[in-house]
Amino acid sequence: MAKCRVCGAPAEAYLDYSRTYLCPRCFNDYYERKVRATIQRFKMIKPNDRVLVAVSGGKDSASLLAVLRKLLPDVEMTALYINLGIPQYSDHCEEKFKKITEVLGVESLVFDLKRELGFSIPDFRRTVYRRRLCSPCGTIKRYLMNKIAVEQGFSKLATGHHMDDIVETLFNSYLHGDVEQIVRLKPVLPSTHPKFVAKIKPLWNVTEQENLFYATYNELPVRTVGCPLAKGARSLEQKRYLSSLVEHIPNFRHVFLSSHMRKLLPALERSITAPPLKECKKCGMPTSGEVCAFCRRAELVLGKILNQSPKFKV
Amino acid sequence: MAKCRVCGAPAEAYLDYSRTYLCPRCFNDYYERKVRATIQRFKMIKPNDRVLVAVSGGKDSASLLAVLRKLLPDVEMTALYINLGIPQYSDHCEEKFKKITEVLGVESLVFDLKRELGFSIPDFRRTVYRRRLCSPCGTIKRYLMNKIAVEQGFSKLATGHHMDDIVETLFNSYLHGDVEQIVRLKPVLPSTHPKFVAKIKPLWNVTEQENLFYATYNELPVRTVGCPLAKGARSLEQKRYLSSLVEHIPNFRHVFLSSHMRKLLPALERSITAPPLKECKKCGMPTSGEVCAFCRRAELVLGKILNQSPKFKV
Repeated sequence: MAKCRVCGAPAEAYLDYSRTYLCPRCFNDYYERKVRATIQRFKMIKPNDRVLVAVSGGKDSASLLAVLRKLLPDVEMTALYINLGIPQYSDHCEEKFKKITEVLGVESLVFDLKRELGFSIPDFRRTVYRRRLCSPCGTIKRYLMNKIAVEQGFSKLATGHHMDDIVETLFNSYLHGDVEQIVRLKPVLPSTHPKFVAKIKPLWNVTEQENLFYATYNELPVRTVGCPLAKGARSLEQKRYLSSLVEHIPNFRHVFLSSHMRKLLPALERSITAPPLKECKKCGMPTSGEVCAFCRRAELVLGKILNQSPKFKV
Repeated sequence: MAKCRVCGAPAEAYLDYSRTYLCPRCFNDYYERKVRATIQRFKMIKPNDRVLVAVSGGKDSASLLAVLRKLLPDVEMTALYINLGIPQYSDHCEEKFKKITEVLGVESLVFDLKRELGFSIPDFRRTVYRRRLCSPCGTIKRYLMNKIAVEQGFSKLATGHHMDDIVETLFNSYLHGDVEQIVRLKPVLPSTHPKFVAKIKPLWNVTEQENLFYATYNELPVRTVGCPLAKGARSLEQKRYLSSLVEHIPNFRHVFLSSHMRKLLPALERSITAPPLKECKKCGMPTSGEVCAFCRRAELVLGKILNQSPKFKV
C-alpha cells in the first residue's frame, strides 16, 4: 500500500499531476494551504468583507464553504442556495445545503426560482432551447447570484469554480479564439459597476479531484444524484478530452493555467478594451446590450408559461 | 466499399476532419486546389520570384515540390537538399531527392554538411546534447537554408511544414505561454533584413495525412526509413496527444488554427514588439544576440572534433 509522502501513514489520496500520495490528514493540510495561498496571492478577501458563498449541494461548493469557514473564522459569511425547480434534484440538493450550513454553522439564504419569479429551469423546455438547458440555467444563476449579493450588501461573491472548470473554459475559449471570454475569466473579477459585486474563485488552484477528496475526508454532506438535465452536456464531453490530455501530460492543467496567467493573459489584455456598460431597459442591471441576457430569457419562458409579460421582482 | 463523394468512384482517401471519402483523382484535385488557395490568400509567390524549395526526402517536402511544380510551371524553382551526415539515413534520403528532382525536372542543389563545414549532425553526440539532437539539427538546417537562399539570390524559401506541424508547435507554444514563438509562426515570414530570405509554408492548410495521400497517389519517390536520431523525440510524443484530441474533436486542428489566425494572433501581435536585430560577431548573419545560435553550436561541435576554432565558410 502506498504511503503518505509527508508522514508515512497509509495514503488515500493520489494526486495525478504531481504523482504524490497523501494520507487524509496531510491532504487536508495541503488543500487548505493551497486555498489560503490563492486567497492571499490574489487578495481575495479582506477582514471586513461580507462574503456571499454560492453553494449548490455538490462537492465543489461544499468544499469551498468548509474551507472558507475554517480558514477565515472571523469573516462574515452567508451561504446562498438557488432552488432551480429541477424535479428529483433541486429539493435533494437543498436538503444537503441545509445540512452543510448547519454542520458548519454558516448563515443560509435560499432563493426559490419558481416561488420568487414564477418559472423554473425545466420551463425552458420547448422554448428556443431544443436540447440542453445548461446555457439558460447558467445565465439565470449568474444573474441572481450577483443581484442578491448587490441587494443584500455583500462585498464579495465566492463560487466553487475549480481548476478543471477553469481550464476547460479557457481551453475552449482559446480553441474558438474567444478573446473577450479569455480576458473575463479571472480569479478575481473586481466590481466595475455599483450593481456588480466583486467575484472571487478561491478554488482557482485546486482540481476537481482534490475537492472530492476534501469533501470525502471532511464528511461533508453532498448530493448523491446528478442533474438530470445535464446528461450529455458539452461540458461533460470537454471533461473527457481534457482527461485524455491529462493522461499524456499529467500537469497539463497546471502548466497551461500558469502560462495563461503569466504570459498570455497580460499580452491579450493589453490589446482588448471592455465594451461600455449600459443599463438593461427591463431590470436596470448593467449589461452590454439593450436588454440583459437574464431578462431576455425570463421573458421567453414567462411568455410561454403565462402568455403574459414578466412582472417579476427579485 | 466507400465511394468518392465527388465522382462516386471507389474511394481511397478518408479525411477524418470532414468525414469525407475521395478517390485518388478527386483527392489530387482537392489537394491542389487547397494549396493554390493558400498561395493566393497569403500572396506567397509572384511570377518573378526565384523559389528555393527545401526538400528532405520525406513525403511532405516531396509533395510540396510536386505540387509547386504543377501549380506554378513558369516560376523559377530550385530544390535544396542538405546532407546531414546521419548514417543509414542521409545518403538514402539524398538518393530519393535526386530521383524526385529528376522525375519532376526541377533543378537541384545539394549541400553536404561534413564536406562544407567539417562536421555532421552525429558529431553533436556527447557535446552538451545528452539525448536527442533534434534541436541543434533544426538550428543548423534553418541557418543554412536561409544563408544559401540569400547568397544565391533566391527571393523565397519554401518549406514543407504542414498543418499538423504547425498546430503541434502552436499548441505547445500556447501551453507554455511562449508569445514570441506564437507570433513568429506564420504562413509567410517576410524578409525583415537583407540577409533574411522571405519564408513561405505553402502546405499550411493541408494535414500530414493529406501529404501522405498526395505522395502515394503521385508515386513520388520518398524515403522509406526514419531518422535514427529522432527516436522518442518530443515532437513524436506531441503527435500522440494531438491525435487523441483529434479523435475527440475531428476538426480540432482546423478550428484551432483558424481561431488562432483570425482572433488570437492579431490580439497578441498588437501587444508584442520584435527584438532588434544585430549582426552575429562570428558570421555576420542577423541575430538577436551577440553570436548567433548556429555559430554557437558549430563552435561547440568543431571544438570537440578538431580541438580548434571553426574556420568554416558556406
